[in-house]
Amino acid sequence: MSKGLEDVVAGTSAITFIDGVRGRLIYAGYDISDLAEHSSYEEVAYLLWHLRLPKPGEFESFAADLRSAGGLPLGVLEGIDDLELECDTMDALEMAIAALGIYDDPRLDTLGKAASIASKIGTIVPYIHAHKTGAKHHEPRKDLSFASNLLYLLNGREPDAFSEKLMNVLLVLHADHELNASTFTARVVASTLSDMYSSVNAAIAALKGPLHGGANERVVEMVERIGSPEGVPRFLAEKFANKEKIMGFGHRVYKTLDPRARILRGYAGRIAATRAERNDLAILDRLADEMVKQKNIYPNVDFYSGFVLHHLGVPTYLFTPFFAVGRTPGWLAHIMEQYSNNRIIRPIAEYTGPRDERYVPIGLRGGSITP
Amino acid sequence: MSKGLEDVVAGTSAITFIDGVRGRLIYAGYDISDLAEHSSYEEVAYLLWHLRLPKPGEFESFAADLRSAGGLPLGVLEGIDDLELECDTMDALEMAIAALGIYDDPRLDTLGKAASIASKIGTIVPYIHAHKTGAKHHEPRKDLSFASNLLYLLNGREPDAFSEKLMNVLLVLHADHELNASTFTARVVASTLSDMYSSVNAAIAALKGPLHGGANERVVEMVERIGSPEGVPRFLAEKFANKEKIMGFGHRVYKTLDPRARILRGYAGRIAATRAERNDLAILDRLADEMVKQKNIYPNVDFYSGFVLHHLGVPTYLFTPFFAVGRTPGWLAHIMEQYSNNRIIRPIAEYTGPRDERYVPIGLRGGSITP
Repeated sequence: MSKGLEDVVAGTSAITFIDGVRGRLIYAGYDISDLAEHSSYEEVAYLLWHLRLPKPGEFESFAADLRSAGGLPLGVLEGIDDLELECDTMDALEMAIAALGIYDDPRLDTLGKAASIASKIGTIVPYIHAHKTGAKHHEPRKDLSFASNLLYLLNGREPDAFSEKLMNVLLVLHADHELNASTFTARVVASTLSDMYSSVNAAIAALKGPLHGGANERVVEMVERIGSPEGVPRFLAEKFANKEKIMGFGHRVYKTLDPRARILRGYAGRIAATRAERNDLAILDRLADEMVKQKNIYPNVDFYSGFVLHHLGVPTYLFTPFFAVGRTPGWLAHIMEQYSNNRIIRPIAEYTGPRDERYVPIGLRGGSITP
Repeated sequence: MSKGLEDVVAGTSAITFIDGVRGRLIYAGYDISDLAEHSSYEEVAYLLWHLRLPKPGEFESFAADLRSAGGLPLGVLEGIDDLELECDTMDALEMAIAALGIYDDPRLDTLGKAASIASKIGTIVPYIHAHKTGAKHHEPRKDLSFASNLLYLLNGREPDAFSEKLMNVLLVLHADHELNASTFTARVVASTLSDMYSSVNAAIAALKGPLHGGANERVVEMVERIGSPEGVPRFLAEKFANKEKIMGFGHRVYKTLDPRARILRGYAGRIAATRAERNDLAILDRLADEMVKQKNIYPNVDFYSGFVLHHLGVPTYLFTPFFAVGRTPGWLAHIMEQYSNNRIIRPIAEYTGPRDERYVPIGLRGGSITP
């Protein structure tokens, strides 16, 4: 038995390939480095759902469909409006996607539902933020790309071209990652032929777990706590002495540098403009150097993503919801692939308990409450 | 690779053992036949969570805790009140559990949360029913057992002792079934250390799928369509000719009669009082005989559960939500077992796509929209 199903092949997929030894990540044949450099959220969503890049006419109609689907049904808006302000953002997101399952247009076909969910989650997260913070809510704009729109809804102003590019890079890098726990959850739920809203909702439930979606938040906290590059050695020595985990390092699948970390480090160097940012990046670099030197463990995508998100004005408490927005095209691709060649996912357990206990009426079990 | 993870051991568990060859189902050492005959919802929930039967003092305090936890937070009640009347009941249940995650008492410890979720889902389902049908909503009663309370909230009157017993039998039989798709979903989500509400919500999302939770509804529809025992051979001949599946038969794990089906058939014989019920049961019996004779496939629990639920006044559209109420103790047991010895569940996929596509700018991809 392989605990946590490590290295167990749970199915075939033509969506994403991770070469953990060479440190490559490939979406439907295309290297993540090329996609991060040249592509966009919309094009990668198309690629993941159709397993090929769109031709010009196809791209424009697909992007237009996505951009026009961002408005939320009244039932979803009201559901969020009624939430208590202190509620957890991922809980709010679960509620909102459940409501979307009830109030979305029932006539949509599978690809139409996928476009609707992917587009609307990009409106839902900023709307939850506006509700919780009392900020002004903006209507999604059909003239903006998905990446621009996301930043516009969050910050209330259209981002410059470089910020749009940066958001596209983050979205592209997070779009899929094979059978990670949330994507695998989505596939298990889809394998019962449950609907796409419920499957995505289950994925959100999994992403919410601190072992999955929350690592980049904790990297940011760690950097803050360390304070300066000089503080790194002592911080690590203490962590090692207490046998504590260092966030943002290592990955079950990658045995070398996560290519997404390499790409984000490149952008981080370009955007570190303020003194505080340069200090944070110096801490990150020192951490990465020491970890490779002392433990031969490499940074993963979560190590730099918080730094880039902060630069784009995304507050820490929205990191995991933004991760969800980015991962949604991948979840949907896997749900559709599961539907297209389905068998219900139902493993077995190795039973370790007794088999032949005799049922004794409660009066004969003895009255002590210590066993 | 084993499609759908059939026969793949995904972990160890001391909760439930299925002997598919001998047709035995065991909860923490106790045979399901003994538990159905002698035990109750409350006692089985205790057994699944503590892996032993309670002693007298323990049982009373556990049952009292469960019975006093049934009232719903205002945020959950209002969330249901606001739903459109035609919404799917399982969608409504997902919304309500997400709301419970937001509004439940945050001070509860793990077992306290388990008791709260198990108890409250037994109030939520009848409340959704009351909302959708305009029926009067009743407050849960602390002087009633869980089984009695469920029927009281549904029908507005306290059930007689035999109906209470029958509901207990249904709940006990549905309480757990090892790593079925919804329970496995709950464990995958819990393995990210996501919370119990999100884990249960993901399980509900999986149970919603027609390949998982909906089979007993379709057995009822099938019986209605067949009309009389004499109609069975022609119905089956047509189904076989069209290579269609017969609902309520066969099981990935059982190679013989599902013991839960045997137990429910016993009760069905005792409760078939009206002419319509006797006719339905005769159809079921004839179907079971023919399927064993012609195909050597045995009925499963879904084959008789709809018949018993109807007898108890549960409308067909509530079958899957009632299944969820019954399975909740098992989901929670598996979530807690996952927490207690955790490793994130993250399998891999066998990649079947290309690996070395060259990214070409969109203008050079050709403008045709047919590939």
